[in-house]
Amino acid sequence: MAEMVIVGSMALDSVKTPFGEVERVVGGAAVYAAAAASLLAPPRVVGVVGGDFPEEALEFLAARGADLEGVESVPDGKSFYWRGVYDYALSDRETLATELNVFADFNPTLPGSWRDSRYCFLANIQPQVQLAVLDQLHDTCFVMCDTMNLWIEHERDALAEVLARVDLALLNDAEARQLADTPNLAEAADRVLDMGPRLLVIKKGEYGATLVSRDDYFSIPSYPLPNVVDPTGAGDSFAGGMIGLLARRDDCCSTELRRAVAFGTVIASACCEGFSLDGLKRLDQAELARRYDVLRDIVRFDAMEWEEFGA
Amino acid sequence: MAEMVIVGSMALDSVKTPFGEVERVVGGAAVYAAAAASLLAPPRVVGVVGGDFPEEALEFLAARGADLEGVESVPDGKSFYWRGVYDYALSDRETLATELNVFADFNPTLPGSWRDSRYCFLANIQPQVQLAVLDQLHDTCFVMCDTMNLWIEHERDALAEVLARVDLALLNDAEARQLADTPNLAEAADRVLDMGPRLLVIKKGEYGATLVSRDDYFSIPSYPLPNVVDPTGAGDSFAGGMIGLLARRDDCCSTELRRAVAFGTVIASACCEGFSLDGLKRLDQAELARRYDVLRDIVRFDAMEWEEFGA
Repeated sequence: MAEMVIVGSMALDSVKTPFGEVERVVGGAAVYAAAAASLLAPPRVVGVVGGDFPEEALEFLAARGADLEGVESVPDGKSFYWRGVYDYALSDRETLATELNVFADFNPTLPGSWRDSRYCFLANIQPQVQLAVLDQLHDTCFVMCDTMNLWIEHERDALAEVLARVDLALLNDAEARQLADTPNLAEAADRVLDMGPRLLVIKKGEYGATLVSRDDYFSIPSYPLPNVVDPTGAGDSFAGGMIGLLARRDDCCSTELRRAVAFGTVIASACCEGFSLDGLKRLDQAELARRYDVLRDIVRFDAMEWEEFGA
Repeated sequence: MAEMVIVGSMALDSVKTPFGEVERVVGGAAVYAAAAASLLAPPRVVGVVGGDFPEEALEFLAARGADLEGVESVPDGKSFYWRGVYDYALSDRETLATELNVFADFNPTLPGSWRDSRYCFLANIQPQVQLAVLDQLHDTCFVMCDTMNLWIEHERDALAEVLARVDLALLNDAEARQLADTPNLAEAADRVLDMGPRLLVIKKGEYGATLVSRDDYFSIPSYPLPNVVDPTGAGDSFAGGMIGLLARRDDCCSTELRRAVAFGTVIASACCEGFSLDGLKRLDQAELARRYDVLRDIVRFDAMEWEEFGA
């Protein structure tokens, strides 16, 4: 097991899906990723919260082994706030409000003893902030970063600098096409790898995820869910599951990377089964193991005996 | 090896994609499916063509072992014609023209000796026509059908009758949601199975395909393609690959069904590499075998030792 640090937003979300609606519940990329990773290894969390952020959420993360020394609290400030609504098939969402609040001045400072963390997940934040974190880490073995269309459009240079310094970039398929400026996803993957990271994960929501490098290609479907409630945080839970497994195994060979994508897939599925952290809270290690084994069976098909076949 | 019959359109298509444009090239669901199936077992083809349908296309199918006794020719009629244009990411297409021509009066009559065909693919046609074919088959072992949004909206009763009589329904994800009237794909699958077929394949285009039954769930990504040219006919090539493999093995147990989905996936990938039948013509058995084995590797991830893991 190696040390892992997760940096990103800690938020309050108001979310409406075809299956329900919640107001100002706990969310944020770092919160989802840390809750997910904590199923596998204890994360170090870097973020900022206002006085309105529920104490119970921090207690929950701490009880799961998370170290919250890197969480800055601004008692007279308000937490990052996001309000969004999902479409009928949960494949698209519209942002109705974003209030940065204390997150506007987020200037992450890693506790001194955290600077040799071996594994790091930089959740979606302004790339300049991601670079500031990278500058503080001096002995990483594996860094993954997320991003979003806003930075691809408006902060392309800084984002390119981030991509040149991380091991793995996490993008959804639209972002990959946008970043690489090509409709062909295989070609887009190639161009993203040209920008620096040796690995790329393309997140496809309910369609699964694909891991690409110069010499490896791995792709699995999502875990089938009869009861999807809210996909908010699924991508961050996926990332948390990945970095958690890699830190736990302290190995990022192809075998562990593929397993990490499978863990991310399974943990993301649990995230979608409730609002806020409800789904991740319900997922225990036995259910995690069960779903991992089910996912292996879902993609299994037998070899052919090509001699008989005549090929 | 068992006898297999394929029923559907034989067409001339004008297609525009971001990668090129062709005018009045050979297409049609039965043509793509037969060309695909012929890589695995000789198909019996039922369809209708006008005097403008290229003789070379029929000769190509015959040379690949297809029996064309069921293809009606109307020398003074025009073939079914479709004109369409694809969007940037090839995920959506717009139909600019559809001329039924000789297909308007398509009233398939199976040659007497074909009525005991064991395997059958009913490509997308009006469900009443699919029912007329089913009435002529009296000893089938496995029947699969395709359909489209038009029939889901306007011929729901006849379509329901078809679904109650086939073994496998082939739908894309939008059609499954529309037919079942629910945004949740897992729930949609359940409701489609309630309508009769014991198996459902949900085609997801570049995202792969999922096979669902009451006691089996199988899902694989598509085969990655650096050079997609035109996805027209990919779904029909997929279906042709499936029925071809099942007929070749003369077995529709879970093992062969999963393999059939993998063959369909690989053959559909080749279809997308050219306009018309160009991609399918280039695919030989060695390349088919290679892609099948690559696809097995693409989805492979290792088991965990849960005891060590603590689960």
